[in-house]
Formats: sequence, structure tokens, C-alpha cells
Amino acid sequence: MNGKLIGNAIVGQSGGPTAAINATLAGVIKGALSNGAIKTVYGMRNGIEGMLAERLVDLGDIFLDESKLDMLIHTPAAALGSCRKKLPDPKSEKAEDMAFFEKVFEIFKKYDIRYFFYIGGNDSMDTVAKLSVYAAKKDYDIRIMGVPKTIDNDLVATDHTPGFGSAAKFVSTVMTEIVRDCAVYTTKAVTIVEVMGRDAGWLTASAGVGKALGIDAPDLVYLPERDFSMEEFFASLRTAFEKHPNIVVAVSEGIRFADGRYVGEGTQSGSTDVFGHKYLAGTAKALELAVKAEFGCKVRSVELNLPQRCGAHIASKTDLDESVAIGAEAVRVAADEGVSGEMVLFERISSTPYVYEIKHKKVSEIANAVRCVPDEYINAEGNHITDACCEYILPLIEGEAYPEYERGLPKYIVL
Amino acid sequence: MNGKLIGNAIVGQSGGPTAAINATLAGVIKGALSNGAIKTVYGMRNGIEGMLAERLVDLGDIFLDESKLDMLIHTPAAALGSCRKKLPDPKSEKAEDMAFFEKVFEIFKKYDIRYFFYIGGNDSMDTVAKLSVYAAKKDYDIRIMGVPKTIDNDLVATDHTPGFGSAAKFVSTVMTEIVRDCAVYTTKAVTIVEVMGRDAGWLTASAGVGKALGIDAPDLVYLPERDFSMEEFFASLRTAFEKHPNIVVAVSEGIRFADGRYVGEGTQSGSTDVFGHKYLAGTAKALELAVKAEFGCKVRSVELNLPQRCGAHIASKTDLDESVAIGAEAVRVAADEGVSGEMVLFERISSTPYVYEIKHKKVSEIANAVRCVPDEYINAEGNHITDACCEYILPLIEGEAYPEYERGLPKYIVL
Repeated sequence: MNGKLIGNAIVGQSGGPTAAINATLAGVIKGALSNGAIKTVYGMRNGIEGMLAERLVDLGDIFLDESKLDMLIHTPAAALGSCRKKLPDPKSEKAEDMAFFEKVFEIFKKYDIRYFFYIGGNDSMDTVAKLSVYAAKKDYDIRIMGVPKTIDNDLVATDHTPGFGSAAKFVSTVMTEIVRDCAVYTTKAVTIVEVMGRDAGWLTASAGVGKALGIDAPDLVYLPERDFSMEEFFASLRTAFEKHPNIVVAVSEGIRFADGRYVGEGTQSGSTDVFGHKYLAGTAKALELAVKAEFGCKVRSVELNLPQRCGAHIASKTDLDESVAIGAEAVRVAADEGVSGEMVLFERISSTPYVYEIKHKKVSEIANAVRCVPDEYINAEGNHITDACCEYILPLIEGEAYPEYERGLPKYIVL
Repeated sequence: MNGKLIGNAIVGQSGGPTAAINATLAGVIKGALSNGAIKTVYGMRNGIEGMLAERLVDLGDIFLDESKLDMLIHTPAAALGSCRKKLPDPKSEKAEDMAFFEKVFEIFKKYDIRYFFYIGGNDSMDTVAKLSVYAAKKDYDIRIMGVPKTIDNDLVATDHTPGFGSAAKFVSTVMTEIVRDCAVYTTKAVTIVEVMGRDAGWLTASAGVGKALGIDAPDLVYLPERDFSMEEFFASLRTAFEKHPNIVVAVSEGIRFADGRYVGEGTQSGSTDVFGHKYLAGTAKALELAVKAEFGCKVRSVELNLPQRCGAHIASKTDLDESVAIGAEAVRVAADEGVSGEMVLFERISSTPYVYEIKHKKVSEIANAVRCVPDEYINAEGNHITDACCEYILPLIEGEAYPEYERGLPKYIVL
């Protein structure tokens, strides 16, 4: 597999937007444009769905001007557009399923695509795994690589995922500001801040890192890795009120009671996405009503919502630098080392000083598994994170990667 | 009134927090520490309420180290704490009302307070006006000054208010990011973003300024200055869908139907604050449900909530510079020109280039009036802002005033 495979490359983005997915795209483009084995670098609009419709762009053409790549690095969301398409089983016997894969490989052949890079989260790695299985059955030489991306930080095998650091920096920065905001009045009040993360509490955990620096952080932090108990929550609030009148709480959207019901269930829409995930909304709102009924004090709920995943104006420099690097490395190992069917990943060598290496691993061992926050990162009471968790997260939010501004507004690229 | 009045000064903050109210405090401190007429500079904790409890701090002591003042400038929310206290009528005949004012002036006398600076919004100017009326009845020489502050930008007499520019920069920056985020999918979807502003739509208007720079901005912008019609909103959405599948809408929390009912009324808590203002919540949520029922497509609502008023990490440099300047000028006119019972304010000389002057005016002509967005800043359809509005807002969000960071988190001062 170490022979030079000469041909064209295609790159796509999939799943939810992040502040770093375009930095990874820029890394792939840089890597591909400077690799002798790769001729044309195509971008697929809206992921695999757009590729099927042959909605391709010539990225070498667009990024002749290097300064545009720099603007791409700082632009949030998926510049090529995204999709949420679940691929059929490549071992399926159904005619329509086979027709799908036939169509994909027809397009590969038509455009002489020999390198396929897919930037995304768990569901996107599923796509990479399935295309790899089908490619193995076909007599068509192609190298298929997954490049991780998700604010949820829940992919297995990698120390962390590109996009997490920037989302964590937004959440932790805004939390230091909300804590200051809530401290101005002397009246008893509870502010409940809801953070994204359905099954893994990584992003909610980042709300609490200030405590390691002696900065006022939320009093309480609740992750979906622990069963949520309303009684214990009320007890923790009572203890917190003994210290000061303004309590700030960070909760993950995905916290559940011991019986499995989501805390926000009463206020959720009940619909599910194509992967069967339930849409959640209103976990903080549900807690707001419960705390108001119990304590009778002022209670507010704040959903950090979309800004936490697209807040490129406060992106982590570490995250953007790493995102560019991992995109370029995916190209290098595919083109120079013949790697295929794998995902590039980060291996942490040490936290202090922060040192990491980029490795790669079979995507079949990665897709469809969720990496949760481990026990040693959550305190015994299940209502805050530990110092070890802070030491894990802090290097990932280090450094500020500011976009350029014009007349007061950030300059973002539109492809 | 031009004689030198020698004595101590006291400064307080009141009303809702902003990202610039501490910059104004820093300006007052700088001005007072360098003015020969002023000896000790006291800060009152939690506004007039804290002063009554003699919860005072010696600010000259705290800010001996100049670098601390710089950190104060970049710190969001009210470092001295705030309050929402409505003062009684100074012309009242009631014994308890008179006792209140007697107590205030006893404290003035006890600490030899000859300068009183109160940084706040509309309700705080009411405090300044009432203290000034009472001071005029008393044989006690004191100069009382109001320094404006509010993200709502709704004070009359001034071109704009300190704090508005930074909140507007947060809102407009995050909107450019939300628009990018929403553009990634090809499926029909509406995203409704709710911005603070009960009676005046200034902050919601700032969500739309990107259009003047050719940046993708929200498709529709609704201010409380216009009656809201659900039928016209649906019609505007239909027109917008003809251009692209992803519609982004910015709405003020305070939009009302022609009959006066708040759009978010169904979801509001019904309670009021001490000034009789209704608490609103869920305007975007109410619209989300209505649009979902009408169009059957994916609809999301996003409340920008607290982060828009405390987002010091993306403060406007123009706003922070002006906020320091107006605080220092309040001290100068009080001490050097004998001005009292007035509010310092901005007068705009031109927008291109942006030039302003700081003036002052009787606070009795300012308090308890609301300055709304004028007709010429809202388009004929009532669903977006005009170019003239953009030209008004853009200079106020110009420049980035970043705080210092340590290990990835902003360094904010706690007094």
C-alpha cells in the first residue's frame, strides 16, 4: 500500500458546524495542494449528498490566493456546507442500497477521485467506515480518510476532537462573564446555564475550569454521565446559598434522572433526527421552574445555544492550529504512507507542558462509539468537575485566535 | 457655582450590568484621583442601598496600582455591585420618605462627600434627579452627577449610551456567526434570535448592520417600535424562502401586536420589577411555535440572553474608550466647572469620520423618558433596518478591546 497513487482528491464536511471545521478544511487543502500525488482538489458541497448531485468546486482555484486560506481558518461553520445523511449498510443485499454505492463510485471514477477526506463527527466516521468496506469489495483504488470534528469531544480513540477547544473556550469565557454579571445584586438568585452535549458532558465540564485558576466559576456543574437527582440538586443549592446569594449552575442539555427520563423531557419537542437522536430543549428551563417552586427566589435560565458552536470570534488558538495540522496530516498519511479507512487522531504526550502527536487508527474501531467524561473527572458528589478534568481541558482552550475585523465586524469567507 | 469645592467623592453603579460600566467607573476614578479638589474617592457597594448601609470602599487605595485600572476597564458587569432601588419623591410629605433622604445626607456629611457620581440607566438618572431636588432644599453643598450606562441605548439627550456599543458588537458579531451556522444545511429552516430591549429596539437593530457591509445578515429584523403582525411576518418569510432555504430572523424581546399584547405574552412569567416593568421571556419561543405550525419546517429559537450584556471578551474599543472618557469628564465638569444635577452625554458631530463631543444637561429633562429607534432607521415594511441606521450604529462597534488572558481565560477584576 505504499506506492504512489496519482489522482484527484475530494473533501467534504458533515454533521453539526463548529468554529474549527474550516481550519481542518484549510489543512486538507494546504496538504493536498502541496502533495505531488494529488492533482485537482475538489470540495463537495453539503457532504456526500452534494457529491451525489455532482455539486463540486475546485478548491485549488478558489484558494490560489493564500490569504483566503487564512480567512477560511477563522470562519465558523462548514464553508462547504454540511449534511446529515446516514449511508446504507455496504453489506446489504438490497438493490437500492447497492445502487447508492454504485452511484458514489461512478462519481469517483468520473472525476478520477483517488483520495476522499471526510471531516465530521461520529456519524461521519460511520460514512467513512461504510465507504471503506464497499471500496474493499470494489476493484477501485482509493484512499478514504476520516478527519475528526465535533464540539462534543465524544469520539473514541482520540485525546480530543478539533472544534471542542474553541467551543470550550466560548463556554468557559462566557461563564466567567455570567458569574460576574450574576454577582452584582445582593438578592437571592439562581442562574442555570444550559450547555450542549447529549450523551457526553465534555462541553459542560469546560464551564467549570475557572476554578482551577482561582477564578469564580459556576457553583455547580452537572454532566449527563451522572444520574440527576432533584433532591440532591436542591440540597447542593442550599449549601451554596450559605456562601453567597448568587448561585450559578451549569447543566448539560442531556442530564437524565435515574429512571432514564431526560430532565428537559417535559419541555422537549419529542422529534428525533435521522440517526434517531432525540431533540432536546429546555433542560435549564425545566430546572428553572423546579427551583422557583422550591426556593421562591429569582431564577433565570440561559441556553448558550448556537453561539457556543460557531463562536469563531473567541476561537482557541490551540484548537485552530491543531485543526489545520490534523487536516494536513490526513492528506500526508494517505498520499505518502498509503493509509486508508482510518481516522487521524490526537495522542496527548503530556499536559504540562502540553505536547501531542497526530496518529491514525482504523475507523471501524471508532465509529458509533461514544467517549464519555471518565469518573476521575467528576467529583464524588457528582456536582462539579475535578482538578484533573481542568488540567485536561485547559491546554485545549489556550491562546486566542482572533479573526480579522472590518468596521467592527469579523470578516468570514463565503464559498 | 464656579468656586472650588474641596471634599471627598463617592461613586456608585446601578441598574443592569454592561460590558462598559466598569470602564466608566475607571474614568471616574482616574478623573477624581487626579483632581485637586477631591481628596478620598469612595466607592459604594450595591449602589445607593449599599451607601445607606455604609458599605464603602476606598478606591484610591485599591487602584494605587495603575495596571488594576486597566483590568477594571475590561471587566464586565458592575465591579462595585448594583441595585434596583426606586427613591421616594423628594417633595413627599411622608415621614418615612423624608427619613430616607435625611439618612442619605447624614452619610454625605459623615464622610464629607461633596461629589456624588452615579453610573446607570434611566432609573438611575431618576435617582440623580431626586437627590438633586432634595440637595437644593438642604443647606449642604454637594455636586451630584449622572453618568449614563445602558445596553438599551434608550436615554434621551445623548447620541448613544456607554455599554450599547459593546452589546451591539456582541449581537452583530454573533449574528454573522449564526448566519454562517444556519447556512450549512440545504433543508428549509427558520432560526429566530431574540435580542434584549423592552421598549427600544436599538440592540435588535444592531443585529442587522452586516447588510451595510455586504455581509450576510439576518433576513428579517423586528423592533418593538413597530406593531408586529403574524400575517405579515409569515408573508415576509415566504418571500425570504424564495431566495434561500435558511432564514434567520432577529426579534426584540419587546415586540407587541397592534392591540398591545406582547408576542411573548403567552410564555412570560407575569411578574414585574420594582419599577413596574414586566419581565418578558420567550418571544422567540412563541414565534418558533407559530412558524412551525404554519410552515411545518425545522424552526429554532435562540435567546442571546445574559451573554449579550456581559460579553466583555468582544467589547467595542470605541465604547470602552468613550466610557472611560465620559466618566472622567463627569468629574471634571463637577469639580472644575461647578456643574451639578446634570448628566454627561455624547453629541455626535459626524459619522464619517466619526467625531463626538461630551456635553452635559439637566438630569430632570432626561430621567424617565425613553428614546426609541426613529422612523428613518426602520424600513417601510417594518421588517429590517435602513442604511441610515447602519451608519449610526457602525462607528459605535468599531475596534476590538480584548481583555488579557491567562491559560485561555480572560482576567477580570473582583473588588
